[in-house]
Amino acid sequence: MATTDAANSGIVLFAHGARDARWAEPFERLADTLRSLRGGPRGGPVSLAFLELMSPDLPTAVAAQVASGCRAVTVVPVFFGQGGHIRQDLPVIVDQCRAAHPDIEIRCATPVGEDEAVIAAIAQYCLRQV
Amino acid sequence: MATTDAANSGIVLFAHGARDARWAEPFERLADTLRSLRGGPRGGPVSLAFLELMSPDLPTAVAAQVASGCRAVTVVPVFFGQGGHIRQDLPVIVDQCRAAHPDIEIRCATPVGEDEAVIAAIAQYCLRQV
Repeated sequence: MATTDAANSGIVLFAHGARDARWAEPFERLADTLRSLRGGPRGGPVSLAFLELMSPDLPTAVAAQVASGCRAVTVVPVFFGQGGHIRQDLPVIVDQCRAAHPDIEIRCATPVGEDEAVIAAIAQYCLRQV
Repeated sequence: MATTDAANSGIVLFAHGARDARWAEPFERLADTLRSLRGGPRGGPVSLAFLELMSPDLPTAVAAQVASGCRAVTVVPVFFGQGGHIRQDLPVIVDQCRAAHPDIEIRCATPVGEDEAVIAAIAQYCLRQV
Protein backbone atom coordinates (compact mmCIF):
# COMPACT_ATOMS: atom_id res chain seq x y z
CA MET A 1 0.00 0.00 0.00
CA ALA A 2 1.33 3.42 -0.91
CA THR A 3 1.50 5.72 2.04
CA THR A 4 2.39 9.37 2.47
CA ASP A 5 3.71 11.36 5.42
CA ALA A 6 0.27 12.85 5.91
CA ALA A 7 -1.40 9.45 5.98
CA ASN A 8 1.09 8.29 8.61
CA SER A 9 0.50 11.32 10.81
CA GLY A 10 -2.59 11.40 12.99
CA ILE A 11 -4.26 14.25 14.85
CA VAL A 12 -6.14 13.65 18.10
CA LEU A 13 -8.39 16.48 19.24
CA PHE A 14 -8.35 16.32 23.04
CA ALA A 15 -11.42 17.79 24.75
CA HIS A 16 -12.76 17.85 28.30
CA GLY A 17 -15.94 15.79 27.91
CA ALA A 18 -19.39 16.35 29.45
CA ARG A 19 -22.41 14.38 30.64
CA ASP A 20 -24.64 15.71 27.84
CA ALA A 21 -23.89 13.90 24.55
CA ARG A 22 -24.90 17.03 22.60
CA TRP A 23 -21.90 18.81 24.09
CA ALA A 24 -19.64 16.94 21.66
CA GLU A 25 -21.37 18.20 18.50
CA PRO A 26 -19.02 21.14 17.76
CA PHE A 27 -16.03 18.83 18.30
CA GLU A 28 -17.47 16.39 15.75
CA ARG A 29 -17.90 19.30 13.32
CA LEU A 30 -14.33 20.40 14.01
CA ALA A 31 -13.06 16.88 13.32
CA ASP A 32 -15.06 16.73 10.06
CA THR A 33 -13.73 20.13 8.97
CA LEU A 34 -10.18 19.04 9.73
CA ARG A 35 -10.62 15.75 7.84
CA SER A 36 -11.75 17.71 4.77
CA LEU A 37 -8.81 20.10 5.07
CA ARG A 38 -6.44 17.12 5.25
CA GLY A 39 -7.87 15.74 2.01
CA GLY A 40 -10.22 13.06 3.30
CA PRO A 41 -9.25 9.43 3.92
CA ARG A 42 -5.82 9.86 2.29
CA GLY A 43 -4.88 12.76 4.56
CA GLY A 44 -4.27 10.90 7.80
CA PRO A 45 -6.70 10.18 10.60
CA VAL A 46 -8.39 12.75 12.83
CA SER A 47 -9.87 11.46 16.09
CA LEU A 48 -11.51 12.86 19.19
CA ALA A 49 -10.46 11.94 22.73
CA PHE A 50 -11.76 13.09 26.08
CA LEU A 51 -10.36 13.73 29.55
CA GLU A 52 -13.48 12.51 31.34
CA LEU A 53 -17.18 11.68 31.04
CA MET A 54 -16.91 10.70 27.36
CA SER A 55 -14.99 8.09 25.42
CA PRO A 56 -12.52 7.27 24.05
CA ASP A 57 -9.84 8.50 26.39
CA LEU A 58 -6.54 9.74 24.98
CA PRO A 59 -4.54 6.49 25.34
CA THR A 60 -7.30 4.59 23.49
CA ALA A 61 -7.46 7.14 20.66
CA VAL A 62 -3.68 7.21 20.26
CA ALA A 63 -3.46 3.39 20.30
CA ALA A 64 -6.10 3.22 17.55
CA GLN A 65 -4.16 5.62 15.33
CA VAL A 66 -0.95 3.67 15.90
CA ALA A 67 -2.76 0.42 15.11
CA SER A 68 -4.00 1.98 11.86
CA GLY A 69 -0.40 2.69 10.81
CA CYS A 70 0.39 6.16 12.15
CA ARG A 71 4.06 6.80 12.92
CA ALA A 72 3.39 10.22 14.44
CA VAL A 73 0.47 11.51 16.47
CA THR A 74 -0.19 15.17 17.31
CA VAL A 75 -2.45 15.84 20.27
CA VAL A 76 -4.24 19.20 20.04
CA PRO A 77 -6.02 20.31 23.23
CA VAL A 78 -9.36 21.87 22.33
CA PHE A 79 -9.39 24.03 25.44
CA PHE A 80 -9.41 27.79 25.81
CA GLY A 81 -6.94 28.25 28.64
CA GLN A 82 -4.20 26.39 30.43
CA GLY A 83 -5.56 25.29 33.78
CA GLY A 84 -4.90 22.16 35.77
CA HIS A 85 -6.25 19.86 33.05
CA ILE A 86 -3.63 21.08 30.56
CA ARG A 87 -0.74 21.85 32.91
CA GLN A 88 -1.04 18.79 35.16
CA ASP A 89 -3.40 16.08 33.84
CA LEU A 90 -2.51 16.11 30.14
CA PRO A 91 1.31 15.76 30.44
CA VAL A 92 0.83 12.64 32.60
CA ILE A 93 -1.52 11.09 30.03
CA VAL A 94 0.77 12.00 27.11
CA ASP A 95 3.70 10.41 28.96
CA GLN A 96 1.61 7.23 29.35
CA CYS A 97 0.99 7.26 25.59
CA ARG A 98 4.69 7.72 24.84
CA ALA A 99 5.58 4.86 27.18
CA ALA A 100 3.04 2.61 25.45
CA HIS A 101 4.35 3.50 21.96
CA PRO A 102 8.08 4.23 22.30
CA ASP A 103 8.67 4.11 18.53
CA ILE A 104 5.96 6.65 17.72
CA GLU A 105 6.49 10.41 17.76
CA ILE A 106 3.76 11.82 20.03
CA ARG A 107 3.63 15.61 20.08
CA CYS A 108 1.37 17.89 22.10
CA ALA A 109 0.31 21.33 20.88
CA THR A 110 -0.68 24.33 22.98
CA PRO A 111 -4.45 24.74 23.46
CA VAL A 112 -6.41 26.11 20.50
CA GLY A 113 -7.66 29.03 22.61
CA GLU A 114 -4.13 30.47 22.81
CA ASP A 115 -3.94 30.99 19.03
CA GLU A 116 -4.20 34.60 17.81
CA ALA A 117 -6.29 33.67 14.76
CA VAL A 118 -8.71 31.67 16.91
CA ILE A 119 -9.02 34.58 19.35
CA ALA A 120 -9.64 36.94 16.41
CA ALA A 121 -12.38 34.67 15.03
CA ILE A 122 -14.06 34.51 18.46
CA ALA A 123 -13.87 38.31 18.80
CA GLN A 124 -15.51 38.73 15.37
CA TYR A 125 -18.27 36.34 16.43
CA CYS A 126 -18.85 38.34 19.64
CA LEU A 127 -19.04 41.56 17.64
CA ARG A 128 -21.76 40.07 15.43
CA GLN A 129 -23.93 39.27 18.48
CA VAL A 130 -24.44 42.91 19.52
CA MET B 1 -22.83 63.49 28.16
CA ALA B 2 -23.17 62.37 24.56
CA THR B 3 -23.73 58.66 24.22
CA THR B 4 -24.06 56.29 21.30
CA ASP B 5 -25.85 52.99 20.87
CA ALA B 6 -22.52 51.19 20.98
CA ALA B 7 -21.50 52.90 24.21
CA ASN B 8 -24.81 51.89 25.78
CA SER B 9 -24.42 48.26 24.77
CA GLY B 10 -22.16 46.04 26.80
CA ILE B 11 -20.70 42.61 26.08
CA VAL B 12 -19.98 40.15 28.88
CA LEU B 13 -17.77 37.21 27.95
CA PHE B 14 -18.96 34.33 30.13
CA ALA B 15 -16.36 31.65 30.82
CA HIS B 16 -16.12 28.64 33.10
CA GLY B 17 -13.34 29.69 35.45
CA ALA B 18 -10.48 27.62 36.88
CA ARG B 19 -8.29 27.41 39.97
CA ASP B 20 -5.15 28.47 38.06
CA ALA B 21 -5.14 32.25 37.48
CA ARG B 22 -3.13 31.74 34.27
CA TRP B 23 -6.16 29.96 32.78
CA ALA B 24 -7.84 33.34 32.24
CA GLU B 25 -5.06 34.80 30.06
CA PRO B 26 -6.62 33.96 26.64
CA PHE B 27 -9.92 35.37 27.87
CA GLU B 28 -8.20 38.64 28.81
CA ARG B 29 -6.62 38.72 25.36
CA LEU B 30 -10.03 38.06 23.79
CA ALA B 31 -11.56 40.91 25.79
CA ASP B 32 -8.73 43.25 24.74
CA THR B 33 -9.15 42.26 21.08
CA LEU B 34 -12.87 42.85 21.29
CA ARG B 35 -12.39 46.26 22.97
CA SER B 36 -10.13 47.30 20.10
CA LEU B 37 -12.63 46.07 17.51
CA ARG B 38 -15.37 48.09 19.25
CA GLY B 39 -13.28 51.25 18.98
CA GLY B 40 -11.85 51.50 22.48
CA PRO B 41 -13.51 53.34 25.38
CA ARG B 42 -16.20 54.86 23.14
CA GLY B 43 -17.31 51.47 21.81
CA GLY B 44 -19.11 50.14 24.85
CA PRO B 45 -17.75 48.03 27.68
CA VAL B 46 -16.43 44.47 27.39
CA SER B 47 -16.19 42.47 30.61
CA LEU B 48 -15.35 38.96 31.70
CA ALA B 49 -17.54 36.90 34.03
CA PHE B 50 -17.14 33.39 35.33
CA LEU B 51 -19.38 30.50 36.31
CA GLU B 52 -17.18 29.34 39.16
CA LEU B 53 -13.72 29.51 40.77
CA MET B 54 -13.02 33.04 39.43
CA SER B 55 -14.65 36.41 39.86
CA PRO B 56 -16.70 38.37 39.02
CA ASP B 57 -19.74 36.18 38.53
CA LEU B 58 -22.24 37.05 35.81
CA PRO B 59 -24.72 39.03 37.96
CA THR B 60 -21.86 41.20 39.27
CA ALA B 61 -20.47 41.86 35.78
CA VAL B 62 -23.92 42.70 34.38
CA ALA B 63 -24.72 45.00 37.32
CA ALA B 64 -21.43 46.87 36.77
CA GLN B 65 -22.25 47.44 33.08
CA VAL B 66 -25.75 48.65 33.97
CA ALA B 67 -24.29 50.97 36.63
CA SER B 68 -21.93 52.39 34.01
CA GLY B 69 -24.90 53.32 31.82
CA CYS B 70 -25.50 50.30 29.57
CA ARG B 71 -29.09 49.88 28.39
CA ALA B 72 -28.40 46.52 26.75
CA VAL B 73 -26.05 43.71 27.70
CA THR B 74 -25.13 40.76 25.50
CA VAL B 75 -23.77 37.68 27.24
CA VAL B 76 -21.51 35.56 25.02
CA PRO B 77 -20.61 32.13 26.42
CA VAL B 78 -16.96 31.40 25.69
CA PHE B 79 -17.55 27.66 25.72
CA PHE B 80 -17.08 25.09 22.97
CA GLY B 81 -20.18 22.97 23.41
CA GLN B 82 -23.57 23.11 25.03
CA GLY B 83 -23.45 20.93 28.10
CA GLY B 84 -25.14 21.36 31.45
CA HIS B 85 -23.39 24.67 32.18
CA ILE B 86 -24.94 26.29 29.11
CA ARG B 87 -28.26 24.43 28.91
CA GLN B 88 -29.10 24.46 32.64
CA ASP B 89 -26.89 26.76 34.75
CA LEU B 90 -26.63 29.78 32.43
CA PRO B 91 -30.37 30.33 31.75
CA VAL B 92 -31.03 30.44 35.50
CA ILE B 93 -28.29 33.03 36.02
CA VAL B 94 -29.44 35.13 33.04
CA ASP B 95 -32.98 35.08 34.43
CA GLN B 96 -31.62 36.37 37.74
CA CYS B 97 -29.89 39.20 35.86
CA ARG B 98 -33.11 40.08 33.99
CA ALA B 99 -35.09 40.10 37.25
CA ALA B 100 -32.48 42.41 38.83
CA HIS B 101 -32.57 44.80 35.85
CA PRO B 102 -36.07 44.66 34.34
CA ASP B 103 -35.52 47.79 32.19
CA ILE B 104 -32.34 46.48 30.57
CA GLU B 105 -32.28 44.26 27.49
CA ILE B 106 -30.17 41.23 28.42
CA ARG B 107 -29.49 38.89 25.53
CA CYS B 108 -27.62 35.60 25.51
CA ALA B 109 -25.72 34.33 22.45
CA THR B 110 -24.97 30.72 21.54
CA PRO B 111 -21.49 29.53 22.61
CA VAL B 112 -18.57 30.72 20.50
CA GLY B 113 -17.58 27.12 19.72
CA GLU B 114 -20.74 26.62 17.67
CA ASP B 115 -19.72 29.30 15.14
CA GLU B 116 -18.54 28.05 11.72
CA ALA B 117 -15.82 30.68 11.42
CA VAL B 118 -14.48 29.84 14.88
CA ILE B 119 -14.47 26.12 14.01
CA ALA B 120 -12.67 26.92 10.75
CA ALA B 121 -10.01 28.95 12.59
CA ILE B 122 -9.48 26.11 15.08
CA ALA B 123 -9.19 23.59 12.23
CA GLN B 124 -6.56 25.75 10.52
CA TYR B 125 -4.64 25.95 13.80
CA CYS B 126 -4.75 22.15 14.15
CA LEU B 127 -3.47 21.76 10.59
CA ARG B 128 -0.46 23.98 11.36
CA GLN B 129 0.54 21.73 14.30
CA VAL B 130 1.25 18.63 12.16
